[in-house]
Amino acid sequence: MQVKGFSAAAVQAGIRYAGRYDLGLIFSQTPAVTAGMFTTNKVKAAPIVLAMERLGSGLCQAVLVNSGNANACTGQAGMDAAVATAGSAAQELGIDPHLVQVASTGVIGQQLPVEPFTRAMPQLVAGLSPDGFDQLAQAIMTTDLVPKVATATVLIGEAEVRLLGVAKGSGMIMPDMATMLCFVVSDARIDHPTLDQAVKVGVEQSFNRITVDGDTSTNDMVLVMANGEAGNTLIDADHPEAAALFNAALYDIFKELALKIVADGEGATKMVTIRVTGARTEQEALHAARTIANSALVKTAFFGEDANWGRIIAALGRSDCLFDPDRVAIRFDDVMLVNRGIFLGSEQEEAATNVLKQRAFTVTIDLGEGDAAAEMYTCDFSFDYVKINADYRS
Amino acid sequence: MQVKGFSAAAVQAGIRYAGRYDLGLIFSQTPAVTAGMFTTNKVKAAPIVLAMERLGSGLCQAVLVNSGNANACTGQAGMDAAVATAGSAAQELGIDPHLVQVASTGVIGQQLPVEPFTRAMPQLVAGLSPDGFDQLAQAIMTTDLVPKVATATVLIGEAEVRLLGVAKGSGMIMPDMATMLCFVVSDARIDHPTLDQAVKVGVEQSFNRITVDGDTSTNDMVLVMANGEAGNTLIDADHPEAAALFNAALYDIFKELALKIVADGEGATKMVTIRVTGARTEQEALHAARTIANSALVKTAFFGEDANWGRIIAALGRSDCLFDPDRVAIRFDDVMLVNRGIFLGSEQEEAATNVLKQRAFTVTIDLGEGDAAAEMYTCDFSFDYVKINADYRS
Repeated sequence: MQVKGFSAAAVQAGIRYAGRYDLGLIFSQTPAVTAGMFTTNKVKAAPIVLAMERLGSGLCQAVLVNSGNANACTGQAGMDAAVATAGSAAQELGIDPHLVQVASTGVIGQQLPVEPFTRAMPQLVAGLSPDGFDQLAQAIMTTDLVPKVATATVLIGEAEVRLLGVAKGSGMIMPDMATMLCFVVSDARIDHPTLDQAVKVGVEQSFNRITVDGDTSTNDMVLVMANGEAGNTLIDADHPEAAALFNAALYDIFKELALKIVADGEGATKMVTIRVTGARTEQEALHAARTIANSALVKTAFFGEDANWGRIIAALGRSDCLFDPDRVAIRFDDVMLVNRGIFLGSEQEEAATNVLKQRAFTVTIDLGEGDAAAEMYTCDFSFDYVKINADYRS
Repeated sequence: MQVKGFSAAAVQAGIRYAGRYDLGLIFSQTPAVTAGMFTTNKVKAAPIVLAMERLGSGLCQAVLVNSGNANACTGQAGMDAAVATAGSAAQELGIDPHLVQVASTGVIGQQLPVEPFTRAMPQLVAGLSPDGFDQLAQAIMTTDLVPKVATATVLIGEAEVRLLGVAKGSGMIMPDMATMLCFVVSDARIDHPTLDQAVKVGVEQSFNRITVDGDTSTNDMVLVMANGEAGNTLIDADHPEAAALFNAALYDIFKELALKIVADGEGATKMVTIRVTGARTEQEALHAARTIANSALVKTAFFGEDANWGRIIAALGRSDCLFDPDRVAIRFDDVMLVNRGIFLGSEQEEAATNVLKQRAFTVTIDLGEGDAAAEMYTCDFSFDYVKINADYRS
């Protein structure tokens, strides 16, 4: 899909490894209204610090993104490199450097070499194309096995508004505000407060509900750019219906990309939805779901296709959620395995084990305390997770 | 070592598997002053609920402990089984059933069969011996590879006071108050408030500082019994020096057993001390150390013998500890790899990698913010961890 006024490109710049796309560029013909969210990790990579500063204007025209090096924990030299690489892109594009955002992903703690960026810049800019987003999605992959792209089209009045998002995972994933890298471009005409709110609400219910390994990255970044080229009636507070349509489309993209990240979690063989219902408050439900979704014992049991509800209830018990163990019910998809805290027997266990043999399933934990519910999306914990992370830098 | 007035025994009762010691008994000739700590998990196994109730008297004469079945999440039937098995031991020993504690470890959510206990009881009681603790340490093992015993002797006045402890790990280990199973017997004469305080302080600095997988068990229990047979001057608030000596000896046993649990953590190939120094408060230091010690990415890097300090600083950044990344120093034993937030280069990295090749080492993270420090003890995250926990119930 093409989004009016937007183009993208990627090149093999050799930033860390040769022979793979590792540098990408997103460009809007005109400055786009832009909202973003960033990691809540207290250790913030240089591009994050720069982006938070530059986003103050609410506008952005280009995003330069590299894999292979996170430019995190690199001190003043790292910040200088972020500014220099953004400047190099701005010069080649002929735009104001303050309208260029940079994003990086990869190894933490290595100085980012500027030279590969400046060398590759002419080719990168020359390659900009409305169809360049698939290549860009490849350029931002690290341990990801598949590129992640999602698109949506929504009618605002009589104008067709398009949205296209790309994201990458797939380790150091437990977003807590924003996550990993995700860029969404849209030709929507929308004002900044409305876009900002749509991003905050959407991220909270999508990227902030996934976990691969419980670790929050130093480089998490979500940027959404809207350049108005669709010519729709302005989406703002005076047009709540248009805002609702746009928000829903943006949320669909966030959610689709978030689930793709979990499904491609490092070493993952299962994609699991943890749904906690019957909690007293949504916050308690979310905390319970997050604790279960992060438990190494629960995740290894998923890998072993073992309906080990004892580990689920033990994780539940160390969460901040208040409940009475004697009221808990646990289901694997439609198979109830535990009711009122008591195991329902080997026949039910066999049926639950069959659910676990699937590539994707939902575990529902009902607390019987109230009406609040929350979901988290997680994956299993496999041999390959250990292999990938014991070998990653070698 | 023998402890006056105490004996122990173990038998193969066939509670879950045949051909292994799975039922043990500790007995004191006279009721012993007893203090304990229990899991903070909101899901508490039946033996924990019973023990918390019975410990109200401050006295205990016998502990009956089984592996193979945790008697957790088993409802009223589980509580009935706990009372019945304790009663069976009391009858065979000829003592008040309220002076018998039961402890269980193993699979959660299976009803505990009483029959194997009653059948084995005569043989178990007949086998009681002052030298029976090594066998008892075997009977409480689950995924543990080695039995865990520690002893200490301390002179209180002119009386030689002895302490002997046994413990088991080795998964679902992130104690948060008390942990796993640990039983210490002593012939010390000590009053209950003094013993209680010694247990609380000692556990906080030992079992509450270890983690294998971040999961807190439903069955954690520490019991310390002192029967006074050593004939020492009473250890109480009026004898602070005697209390100090006893406390130190008890702490040594706790610490030794805690470290043995980590070293024998499921799949562990490395025993790692995470030391955070220069924090503003001890609580912040502890939270930082705990977050690093639980990070799956940090632990897989240890397994890969990769001095991946980026993952350490990323985990630090998502902890509740306040710090400035530009002041952080990281050392692997004596090798400084990061200073003022900046990587010191490949020569230092090579030296740090050599430290990681050892079976045990210390990672020190200095925050440069204040004078507070804390340590956590953890292990690496290996293929075997996944294998053990994907296969455990099969």
